[in-house]
Amino acid sequence: MGSETLRDRTAIVGMGATEFGKGAPESEAALACRAVKAALDDAGLTPDDVDGLSSYTYETTSEFELARNLGFGDLTWFDQIGYGGGAGCATVGHAAAAVTAGLASVVVAWRSRKRSARASRLWAATPNAVEGYEQWGRPWGLGRPVDEAAMLGRRYLHQFGYDRDVFGEIAVAFREHANRNPAAVMHDKPLSIEQYFDARWISEPLCLFDNCLETDGACAVVVVSAERARDLRQRPVYVHAAAQGLPREMQPMSNFHNDDPLRGPSWPAARRLWADAEFGPGDLDTAQIYDAFTPYVVLSLEGYGICERGEAGMFVRSGALRVDGGKLPTNTSGGSLSEAYIHGFNLIIEGVRQLRGTSPAQVDEAETCLVTSGESVPSSAVLLRN
Amino acid sequence: MGSETLRDRTAIVGMGATEFGKGAPESEAALACRAVKAALDDAGLTPDDVDGLSSYTYETTSEFELARNLGFGDLTWFDQIGYGGGAGCATVGHAAAAVTAGLASVVVAWRSRKRSARASRLWAATPNAVEGYEQWGRPWGLGRPVDEAAMLGRRYLHQFGYDRDVFGEIAVAFREHANRNPAAVMHDKPLSIEQYFDARWISEPLCLFDNCLETDGACAVVVVSAERARDLRQRPVYVHAAAQGLPREMQPMSNFHNDDPLRGPSWPAARRLWADAEFGPGDLDTAQIYDAFTPYVVLSLEGYGICERGEAGMFVRSGALRVDGGKLPTNTSGGSLSEAYIHGFNLIIEGVRQLRGTSPAQVDEAETCLVTSGESVPSSAVLLRN
Repeated sequence: MGSETLRDRTAIVGMGATEFGKGAPESEAALACRAVKAALDDAGLTPDDVDGLSSYTYETTSEFELARNLGFGDLTWFDQIGYGGGAGCATVGHAAAAVTAGLASVVVAWRSRKRSARASRLWAATPNAVEGYEQWGRPWGLGRPVDEAAMLGRRYLHQFGYDRDVFGEIAVAFREHANRNPAAVMHDKPLSIEQYFDARWISEPLCLFDNCLETDGACAVVVVSAERARDLRQRPVYVHAAAQGLPREMQPMSNFHNDDPLRGPSWPAARRLWADAEFGPGDLDTAQIYDAFTPYVVLSLEGYGICERGEAGMFVRSGALRVDGGKLPTNTSGGSLSEAYIHGFNLIIEGVRQLRGTSPAQVDEAETCLVTSGESVPSSAVLLRN
Repeated sequence: MGSETLRDRTAIVGMGATEFGKGAPESEAALACRAVKAALDDAGLTPDDVDGLSSYTYETTSEFELARNLGFGDLTWFDQIGYGGGAGCATVGHAAAAVTAGLASVVVAWRSRKRSARASRLWAATPNAVEGYEQWGRPWGLGRPVDEAAMLGRRYLHQFGYDRDVFGEIAVAFREHANRNPAAVMHDKPLSIEQYFDARWISEPLCLFDNCLETDGACAVVVVSAERARDLRQRPVYVHAAAQGLPREMQPMSNFHNDDPLRGPSWPAARRLWADAEFGPGDLDTAQIYDAFTPYVVLSLEGYGICERGEAGMFVRSGALRVDGGKLPTNTSGGSLSEAYIHGFNLIIEGVRQLRGTSPAQVDEAETCLVTSGESVPSSAVLLRN
């Protein structure tokens, strides 16, 4: 793209999060306000400074409600990105694009989610008649997201000759990171590979520990120009590159009807991301990879070019994801599996922490970080550096 | 913003629309596909070239459905903008931002809408209990959008001492333009000011002709870099500036609860728009102003700085909006009132036509055009030039 990129022209200068847990007494809107205010406080900015917003189409707190309740200034940019967990990094990428194109100067990206109160038996609420692409899966038993993820997980194990220990190592490694993170929901709960194998099935080959946590909480970050970032109080974390990915012929959550179901949204996103970057996958110091379900981690490791096709299983088995001695410490906060599931947004927060040097599971001298969003839906990623 | 703008760095190189009317036999998705394909054909591009999309949150055809049905390439940008009729110009602005920031190279913005089949007595379907901001209006009789628009219209007439002839001239002028436009729903139906005053009330002070048409149809445009535009087949229409507007303390559709209800989203959008532009409101050759209801036109004329506060009524009375001898020929296709109501997107199409020199109501040597979106909701605008 030549000079036409947003490379390092913007930075994340503030981040905020509520506590993570279940049964939060506040509304999603109140959680959103608290996280956004915390991010602005962190940056040393006021609500009056805000002139742009980006969030998920799934977000229930509207831009104008957030603006009215927090006292934002006049907004000149706002948008939403679809497909649930695929939207996280795109909100940061769009904030960066808005500032790069001169359409706003202080953009807040956020996600609030109060999921613990939601009915746990979603499939029982599935109507008898489903429309659109869901008609290809729901009537055949793919009632929950985990059933759809299990299809991809099974395919991965089958195609490349792996066993479930690959998924188990992902769950155990991220739990170990969560045990270091006081903010993690699973902070006090160690997990062994034996416990992993003893756990009940949720959807074969996925067991309890292959699933993310249903969490109440909210997260937010603030993006400004690199120039302005230098005058603010935090160490700037630059948005080095950003991309979304919606591959041709894609079907969300159930991308089974094409030549290669394991070639998901990370592939097109990665092409754009690395084409715009000054470093490559081998230069990453840490990664925060969307992990609503463990199979997504191996698919993303391959899609983003960190591992060759079929080799992510071996990479994981080698202990590469671990902060202690791993080649690429990944989901160092515990991720969606063991810190919290804020639709992937807490991965962005941890990416910022790592590049500020303030993670409870800090990677020494971390300078570069890949953050990714939902692997099985139209998705997104950002490269951050300090 | 210094050099950090998207000024003239991108261009609209293709546009497409279905026929406009009622009772279309196709689905909204099929209409969307036809309009997008027409826009790509117009540009001399193929679906395979597309790597970005932008539309309304109200759009029912998802990005992946459009991609699957038309055969798009891998997408690396997609987003949606909220608030119905406020989103139109923002989709073009975001397409331009995506290309400017290097996140996509061929971005399609579109809107499809099949409204004629929708129940005409929406208020009868309003639940007994309403939540959120609607609780401040619905129980007191503001059941339909037109009731909310009537509040602003009444306030405008009262505050600045005008009569309904101002709204009548808007309806009559745009109808006269539609009479020149074979694609307009009201092409064959002339309208006199006498007919306007004889029409039945819809919501005082607004009569039948103060309301836009409920239309089935779809529109799309294609945005690429200015450099690429020079190699394509159509005369490029450059995106000179773009902005959204969500003023502080705003409440959508019923922005009555602040110091100045007539100071709507056009005010903050205009500040950003003109700050980034190389020309001013007095340099406009034509304007396409969101006209779901006639009062929005005077509010936007003032918000975007074309008229001083309170003077848009006089401006309209002078015949300024007319193609024949008017100071600023406006809604030269007939607009939402008399061409079609595709949630304001057809105004963008007419802006492009004017700057290509191909409008049925062509303004001589038109070089600059303002296009605006919904005045009473968080909104947007673009400045186009050739």
